[in-house]
Amino acid sequence: MGVIESMIKFLKLSSFQKALNFCDLFSPIEDCEELNVFELNNRVSFEDVFSKFSLPLSNRSSVDGFAVFSEETFGASENTPVLLKLLGEQRVNDSPIDIEKGGCVRVATGSSLPGNSDGVVMIEHAKVSGDFVEIYKPISYFENVLKKGEDFMEGSVLINKGKRINFRDSALLAAAGFEKVKVYRKPRVAIISTGDEIIPYKEEISISKVYDANGPLIVNGIKNYAEALFFGIVKDSKKDLEEKFEYALENCDCIFISGGSSVGERDYIEEVIKNFGEIIHHGFLVKPGKPLLLGKKNNIPIIGFPGHPLPVMIHLNLVGISVLKKLGGDKNCYPKSDKGILGEPVFSVPGRVDLVMGYRKNNFIIPLLSKSDYISLATKSEFIIKIPEDREIILEGEEVEIYLWD
Amino acid sequence: MGVIESMIKFLKLSSFQKALNFCDLFSPIEDCEELNVFELNNRVSFEDVFSKFSLPLSNRSSVDGFAVFSEETFGASENTPVLLKLLGEQRVNDSPIDIEKGGCVRVATGSSLPGNSDGVVMIEHAKVSGDFVEIYKPISYFENVLKKGEDFMEGSVLINKGKRINFRDSALLAAAGFEKVKVYRKPRVAIISTGDEIIPYKEEISISKVYDANGPLIVNGIKNYAEALFFGIVKDSKKDLEEKFEYALENCDCIFISGGSSVGERDYIEEVIKNFGEIIHHGFLVKPGKPLLLGKKNNIPIIGFPGHPLPVMIHLNLVGISVLKKLGGDKNCYPKSDKGILGEPVFSVPGRVDLVMGYRKNNFIIPLLSKSDYISLATKSEFIIKIPEDREIILEGEEVEIYLWD
Repeated sequence: MGVIESMIKFLKLSSFQKALNFCDLFSPIEDCEELNVFELNNRVSFEDVFSKFSLPLSNRSSVDGFAVFSEETFGASENTPVLLKLLGEQRVNDSPIDIEKGGCVRVATGSSLPGNSDGVVMIEHAKVSGDFVEIYKPISYFENVLKKGEDFMEGSVLINKGKRINFRDSALLAAAGFEKVKVYRKPRVAIISTGDEIIPYKEEISISKVYDANGPLIVNGIKNYAEALFFGIVKDSKKDLEEKFEYALENCDCIFISGGSSVGERDYIEEVIKNFGEIIHHGFLVKPGKPLLLGKKNNIPIIGFPGHPLPVMIHLNLVGISVLKKLGGDKNCYPKSDKGILGEPVFSVPGRVDLVMGYRKNNFIIPLLSKSDYISLATKSEFIIKIPEDREIILEGEEVEIYLWD
Repeated sequence: MGVIESMIKFLKLSSFQKALNFCDLFSPIEDCEELNVFELNNRVSFEDVFSKFSLPLSNRSSVDGFAVFSEETFGASENTPVLLKLLGEQRVNDSPIDIEKGGCVRVATGSSLPGNSDGVVMIEHAKVSGDFVEIYKPISYFENVLKKGEDFMEGSVLINKGKRINFRDSALLAAAGFEKVKVYRKPRVAIISTGDEIIPYKEEISISKVYDANGPLIVNGIKNYAEALFFGIVKDSKKDLEEKFEYALENCDCIFISGGSSVGERDYIEEVIKNFGEIIHHGFLVKPGKPLLLGKKNNIPIIGFPGHPLPVMIHLNLVGISVLKKLGGDKNCYPKSDKGILGEPVFSVPGRVDLVMGYRKNNFIIPLLSKSDYISLATKSEFIIKIPEDREIILEGEEVEIYLWD
């Protein structure tokens, strides 16, 4: 393609919002695996999980102390304790024992409440004295009691389909007796780096040669969301790329290709994608990462990242990971964003979104300004500041949106 | 131990700050493994990694366009373009070619700058016309050029020892040609659940029985920081616990034990820890999680979590993970905290730290108030609100500290 055609193509740049919405074009892969409750962290639930019983199954003590009839403690104080007969001990793994008026039963945290007792005096507010217990403080009705079903009721939903399970969720599922839970299979991602200039790490660097940063970047970056298959480096060979594409489309759920730093390379990447699938957008009103290419074949997203690692990081974070979350069943697939007050002005060009590295200092958002797209700039940043299309400058003190690094 | 001794013990409760500082008592395990750059995500660097060359190695174009002598473009405009002779093309993987005054060289993003050219006109601001290129816009000195060493200089530190490596760091290391990097070995954690009331997931639930939630909770919760060895459930048997402790102290770097919901159980756990190591603190001025037990043997932390899953989640997040980060070499081991404005008042008891589940609504911090320690409360929360020891109430509109869930 000549220079003029390149220029014409740049007139058809898409709004960056379309890249952020790319994940909407795809459906979750409705394929699951059953995992042990010890292996659920960060996996996405494949189904609504309903509780088979109420928790607690009975009223339980939430402290160590003495189960009582709460009204019998009224008026108790350090100087005038209430005296109750010690009727026995209710251990955690005992079935509820009996209790009668004027008496109390020693309980541990988690013990079922004996009989129809309705409160627990904490051990610190009582003292055993022979067969009796002195109660120094009144309790209210059901004080220090975890009521039956307060945690969850039988038949209620514990985890919704499409929820990413964290360690707290895993505790809930385990407490509800689920040894195994169905989760979405992780999408398999084919990762291809391109570039004639790329040399193996073992080879010594020389001018006009570079090491591949995008392969490790993408493999490490998607680890929590997908199974990464690194297809290696494709030199300037359309045939090699076609073969890898063919294999990837057969065996993977998604293709991430990076590079194409020269116009010629970009052209054959575009051509290969066109031959195997369709181009949705090529080129965005965004800086950095204008040449970002988004395509698909059926439900297989194909992303052509630029060659330079900084835009790859940014668009992997904002577009690539969102697509993988969507394929992986996650209902919450957009990048995590927040807002903050700018501590220094930033300048932009109206008509495009600018994505600027930033960090927080004294609760203000500070842009890491730079003429060029350093890799080390991203490693120093804490997040990405978004400067919208309609702004030329955002002043100190104004609110900005930030995207958090994954 | 009797009730009176229990009461006396509760008088010796420690300030919760001591639990937050527990990690300070330990040193990183100075033991490493060498990992491929594709496997570095979330691992901690074992050494300061120095760059072996400058990146870029030479001045490079940051755009597709034409390398020029910038002063020759002065005065160029749409109506009066500057005409330069097209001397050739400098591809990314070519060594720098020559350029002379009055000429320009086509370059791609990443190409070395030809000869001593000092700027690049973007392709959009130029047009090839036969042997010549029309330049429509002037550029400044070194415009669109990534200067030699701008990303990093030879001999500079790319990653510090003790830095947890993210995917951006992995790109930097790969770009610098590191195929393998030394990282701290992950600490091995022995996880023991205790409780006579615990039944296997396969067994049907009955009153006074529970399923183990703490095992899966801890195993899932520490996955990013440690290698988890689940030692299973110890019933009320001191001998069984002793055997597991002995094995754990021989083979692991850390012991997390949960449960001991009854006073008797807690006693024998305390006894076993005392016999094998030392108790540092038992009982804290904090709610929930007062019975938290912190001990150690040499550099092996021993944490006795309470039996109820909610305090386990909280103290795993605030104390347990911090200790694992410290053992794993992470320089940044304290829990991640933030601040926010309270949207509803919260009440506490002075003299203790209250840790309350919370979420954000319209940018305000909302406490999830509850009489009891539900597991489902934690799954609904987004973070933990800290109410300091000296506060009885924090009003709507006041600033509070929050700890983020890991």
